[in-house]
Amino acid sequence: MKTSIGVGLIGTGYMGKCHALAWNGIKAVFGDGPKPVLVHLAEVNAEIARKKADEFGFDKSTGDWRELIGDPAVEVVSVTTPNAFHAEMAIAALEAGKHVWCEKPMAVALADAERMAAAAKAASRVAVLGYNYIQNPLIRQIGQILADDTIGTVNHVRLEMDEDFMADPEALFYWKSEASSGYGALDDFGVHPLSLLQVLFGRPTKVFAHLSKPYADRPTREGTRRAVETFDIASVLFELGEGVSGVMALDRSAWGRKGRIVLQIFGSKGTIVFDQERFNELQLYVTSDRPTELGFRTILAAPQHAPYDRFIPAPGHGLGFNDLKIIECHELLKRIAGQDARVIDFDIGLGIERTVHAMAQSHHEQRWINIA
Amino acid sequence: MKTSIGVGLIGTGYMGKCHALAWNGIKAVFGDGPKPVLVHLAEVNAEIARKKADEFGFDKSTGDWRELIGDPAVEVVSVTTPNAFHAEMAIAALEAGKHVWCEKPMAVALADAERMAAAAKAASRVAVLGYNYIQNPLIRQIGQILADDTIGTVNHVRLEMDEDFMADPEALFYWKSEASSGYGALDDFGVHPLSLLQVLFGRPTKVFAHLSKPYADRPTREGTRRAVETFDIASVLFELGEGVSGVMALDRSAWGRKGRIVLQIFGSKGTIVFDQERFNELQLYVTSDRPTELGFRTILAAPQHAPYDRFIPAPGHGLGFNDLKIIECHELLKRIAGQDARVIDFDIGLGIERTVHAMAQSHHEQRWINIA
Amino acid sequence: MKTSIGVGLIGTGYMGKCHALAWNGIKAVFGDGPKPVLVHLAEVNAEIARKKADEFGFDKSTGDWRELIGDPAVEVVSVTTPNAFHAEMAIAALEAGKHVWCEKPMAVALADAERMAAAAKAASRVAVLGYNYIQNPLIRQIGQILADDTIGTVNHVRLEMDEDFMADPEALFYWKSEASSGYGALDDFGVHPLSLLQVLFGRPTKVFAHLSKPYADRPTREGTRRAVETFDIASVLFELGEGVSGVMALDRSAWGRKGRIVLQIFGSKGTIVFDQERFNELQLYVTSDRPTELGFRTILAAPQHAPYDRFIPAPGHGLGFNDLKIIECHELLKRIAGQDARVIDFDIGLGIERTVHAMAQSHHEQRWINIA
Amino acid sequence: MKTSIGVGLIGTGYMGKCHALAWNGIKAVFGDGPKPVLVHLAEVNAEIARKKADEFGFDKSTGDWRELIGDPAVEVVSVTTPNAFHAEMAIAALEAGKHVWCEKPMAVALADAERMAAAAKAASRVAVLGYNYIQNPLIRQIGQILADDTIGTVNHVRLEMDEDFMADPEALFYWKSEASSGYGALDDFGVHPLSLLQVLFGRPTKVFAHLSKPYADRPTREGTRRAVETFDIASVLFELGEGVSGVMALDRSAWGRKGRIVLQIFGSKGTIVFDQERFNELQLYVTSDRPTELGFRTILAAPQHAPYDRFIPAPGHGLGFNDLKIIECHELLKRIAGQDARVIDFDIGLGIERTVHAMAQSHHEQRWINIA
Repeated sequence: MKTSIGVGLIGTGYMGKCHALAWNGIKAVFGDGPKPVLVHLAEVNAEIARKKADEFGFDKSTGDWRELIGDPAVEVVSVTTPNAFHAEMAIAALEAGKHVWCEKPMAVALADAERMAAAAKAASRVAVLGYNYIQNPLIRQIGQILADDTIGTVNHVRLEMDEDFMADPEALFYWKSEASSGYGALDDFGVHPLSLLQVLFGRPTKVFAHLSKPYADRPTREGTRRAVETFDIASVLFELGEGVSGVMALDRSAWGRKGRIVLQIFGSKGTIVFDQERFNELQLYVTSDRPTELGFRTILAAPQHAPYDRFIPAPGHGLGFNDLKIIECHELLKRIAGQDARVIDFDIGLGIERTVHAMAQSHHEQRWINIA
Repeated sequence: MKTSIGVGLIGTGYMGKCHALAWNGIKAVFGDGPKPVLVHLAEVNAEIARKKADEFGFDKSTGDWRELIGDPAVEVVSVTTPNAFHAEMAIAALEAGKHVWCEKPMAVALADAERMAAAAKAASRVAVLGYNYIQNPLIRQIGQILADDTIGTVNHVRLEMDEDFMADPEALFYWKSEASSGYGALDDFGVHPLSLLQVLFGRPTKVFAHLSKPYADRPTREGTRRAVETFDIASVLFELGEGVSGVMALDRSAWGRKGRIVLQIFGSKGTIVFDQERFNELQLYVTSDRPTELGFRTILAAPQHAPYDRFIPAPGHGLGFNDLKIIECHELLKRIAGQDARVIDFDIGLGIERTVHAMAQSHHEQRWINIA
Repeated sequence: MKTSIGVGLIGTGYMGKCHALAWNGIKAVFGDGPKPVLVHLAEVNAEIARKKADEFGFDKSTGDWRELIGDPAVEVVSVTTPNAFHAEMAIAALEAGKHVWCEKPMAVALADAERMAAAAKAASRVAVLGYNYIQNPLIRQIGQILADDTIGTVNHVRLEMDEDFMADPEALFYWKSEASSGYGALDDFGVHPLSLLQVLFGRPTKVFAHLSKPYADRPTREGTRRAVETFDIASVLFELGEGVSGVMALDRSAWGRKGRIVLQIFGSKGTIVFDQERFNELQLYVTSDRPTELGFRTILAAPQHAPYDRFIPAPGHGLGFNDLKIIECHELLKRIAGQDARVIDFDIGLGIERTVHAMAQSHHEQRWINIA
Repeated sequence: MKTSIGVGLIGTGYMGKCHALAWNGIKAVFGDGPKPVLVHLAEVNAEIARKKADEFGFDKSTGDWRELIGDPAVEVVSVTTPNAFHAEMAIAALEAGKHVWCEKPMAVALADAERMAAAAKAASRVAVLGYNYIQNPLIRQIGQILADDTIGTVNHVRLEMDEDFMADPEALFYWKSEASSGYGALDDFGVHPLSLLQVLFGRPTKVFAHLSKPYADRPTREGTRRAVETFDIASVLFELGEGVSGVMALDRSAWGRKGRIVLQIFGSKGTIVFDQERFNELQLYVTSDRPTELGFRTILAAPQHAPYDRFIPAPGHGLGFNDLKIIECHELLKRIAGQDARVIDFDIGLGIERTVHAMAQSHHEQRWINIA
């Protein structure tokens, strides 16, 4: 295996910093794999780029992301810019022979996502999306519980994802309420629970969605009100094939919910419940316990749930949100090294995008849409 | 107000005993209203009827329920027999000039429910259904919170009802899996969350349902397997009018869930969450708290949530499931006395039945159904 | 077995009503045993007595409790008056040949408790104290878990009891702050967790207590402030013998706590946790689960936890605080019928009182006190 | 301010890795302060040292820690070796003019802790202990709530710390059961809750402890059993001065507890509850809410709780255990830069050690010990 890998980072916002923390921490956490060399950082202008490069430990900096992509020392590029730029940057990086680690969602338009997947295939480079929630050791444990047949055959699944950053009706209108940003909660949020569905069960086979707007309009800076064009709430029925039914409820205007992603999985021998707001915990009910002692068990993340052990040797001490990104980064490097890895690559990611678009279609046509 | 009221009870199973406990306890709990005189009890045969009359404190007993209905000393009749008998008994009692307290659901067939509502109207007698969950003091408190505008304008509602009595795939086939019993979870469970919706918001205006079977067949006593005809899972999208969207998920084969009815109400200024499995608690999030101290508040039922105070003068000590029936009984007597009362009468109950049937129709026709 | 039993009730406050509800409901709940005949009710004056007798379903009423005790139709007397009257009434009833069901605590003065126990022994009548928390089916289940060796040998126990009715420093001084009412939290609260300890483990063998006052004085109706004489907080270390250590923390000025009694029991193979504020739940951790699936299990009260099944045939639906009193009443009647029964009789109750007094002594002498 | 600082790390176990992660991540997280230059790493031999230096990103490595301390490029030394080595290494580093970041507890013997504090004073260098739990943004928020008088005057405090790494009675005897390791839970655990007490309230003024052994002996590798010399359980009563009473219960053999540190703070206007196993949550009860809506609020860590915002811009997404060390590292650098900082330095740490030793003394002498 290579002993080092050259890293480029485009964007330094929420997710850009998260990538930077992962690149800085991964070697100390995992010990194995190539050492990331932080080569180049790009931002909207040279000044911000330099400042952030110093903070994040990158050597070179630039106000022109194409310069970074042209840098031969860069082998893998983190794309963490606003969604509208993902396609252009990821495709350019792939065409330049770089591996790509791009934040979700792939792109606003399905056609862009398709071009990205095609570019990855053509370039024969690793192209992975930033679906960090699938990296939680307890989500892996859910997969293991399912594989072990501990809860039997799954027959019903419920998903919820709720936050409250759009909950204030008097907050100023901004781009998330513009149709150009997408459908609303459906693509903004839906891809996350769908990524969990993907790693646990694969894609839904048919979907029926209903989108709604909690607030018809919002105030503008000019003192007027502007009609909201996106749907902050999405409610979806789906099937997973072979008669497994499901419900997915999304709301980005749900007061009090901060990072809630609830997963309820019902099987013929037990039930699993998970909530991202307490993502170091997992609830498990199995029918094999003594009748007087049946109950949901609260399992705390612990070293036996790899790779928790790479972070902390003691159980129940708690991983953080940023730690999930470090695990994702490690899986990316495993994939680059040609090993089995738990990633949502551009191909699988395109499937998620297609599912989201099918949901939107089902809303507009008010009918079930089958997914090939 | 009358000082006493003559009571007849038909049926002594789960709900029959629950009614009996209510009739025995109501006067001591509330102190006001007429004293129930336990006149007559009917069961499938005279022997069981006598035994139960002794246990439940009733004077006369009979193996023929029509005898009870013919008893002039009986003024109000509790009908707690299997659903198939509700219509016949309730109508007969109403026609005999009795008030009726009938367990939910009204009837399996919509036509029966319609006849029951018509009979109540014709008889000018009080006819009330046993929707005890609406009597929880904390459900009233939710109503008060909504009325106070504490969480602002509601824009989204989620309901779940789950139990696990149908969860074992190897449990023998019985009548709940026969089509003659109804649709399955939809009517068996759905009426409960719909009764909560009713008292808080009124009826849905449009519905779209998807019914599913966790198990295709079940073993029979004869060692063969028989195809399941009902749907133990129902997933429903709905609107409450004026753009309020909703999701209702029902599952009577949900391992580990014992009496779960979860209600999530999202408003423009806050959120309410309630779970019947912890029905002495209520979660409330309001945006008016200090920014660093925002969070869901766990409110314990207390004397300030009337009529909790009639049961216990100390807060947080906990009402029981049977206590809700005592409150329901008290509301019934208030209605009989011509006072304002919180009840689901046959008229409102018919509305709930119609909603359930519209949901079933939407499943079969795979389209949204508008409710008049 | 007798088919009926004559009941007298003295006092109709918080606990008086609770007894009345139990006497009204017990036969319908349990079906077995003698039918209570509600013979006589005593209150401070004839008028209140009559009113309450009508509400609670008692036949005769009196403003003179000695008249009730003299009534030959009364076979068992509920004593639910303020603590200061317990000794006189209970002893008089026993001397009159009645069985006695007396609310806790036995008496303020240890000497009174001793006289009560002596009177019970002399009268050869059943004399039982109202320790309702021990009647919770899940407390029985804890006993069963211990008996089954499911958590192995117990080595440490923690108890907490907290409410907030004395938490407001500006609430007017009243009798609970007077030394004549006892020590404060120690006797007011301590007897409850000690009753749980009693049925699960027996009496502590040595104790060390520290009493404290959250507020030095309180306002009086006259506008002055009066020094508080009792200790609203008590913190106790103890041993249960054979090296089992324990901690008991009591606070009746603990804002937000409404009926909290937390029990933590640590054994060599597992742990039990219980909280009275959610008394239909029990937490159990056992080491025998799979390593990746270890966790505290939340067990909901269910029909398999007798006598929950006598109240509700469905699991997880929830008993209420008043239901515990019905179970207690049933145990009383079993004891009267000469059967095994789960009760704190005056003898055992005296032991609890002695433990409390030893704790107070240890505080004053600042040393460990051994309990014989 | 300096733009960089040379770092040496001694030890690479549990806490050594934790320090390494902090040194790697701090600049990217906080952006400000000097950039850590990872100069030198020491381990028990050169080979391990080299391997870990590569993983953790350190330049030089050595099997002789004195070589690291002699390295002029090293300005601050992380001491993360077993407790027995803390004194010697920390003092040597201070005498060599280095700043020291030493893991807790300071030392096994009080005399060693005193020498360490004296060395720090003599050297005029920053010497800080690794009490990471105090760095939780929500612990700061508790301090803010207290400072704001939101819960009024505190009158009672309860602390619990429980884990289960000593809970298996059949686990082999190892050094934690030897008297040479200290008292047991008292020093192993007690210092953590005492560090929280320290930053919120200062030191206890008097203490009374009871130590106990859940298991008298443990198996040895040789197949015999060896008597346990330390106390895995400690129960402590204390006062904080001005009549504030407290209880502290510690248990390192508490099955099912993984990283539990529960804090209950009772005041005249409210209550705060915190549990380290859910350290991104805080419970707050205040009396100022509407009477029908009173309840404990669950506050999720969010950007408004600085420095959470330096890690994640979105609320409720969850910090990890290792993130607390990054905050601690940042406070250390602030202190080195002469700024106000939230640290437990050797002086304050010595106070904590003295409190622990006073507790042990109180156990042996079975009396309250006053702390100067």
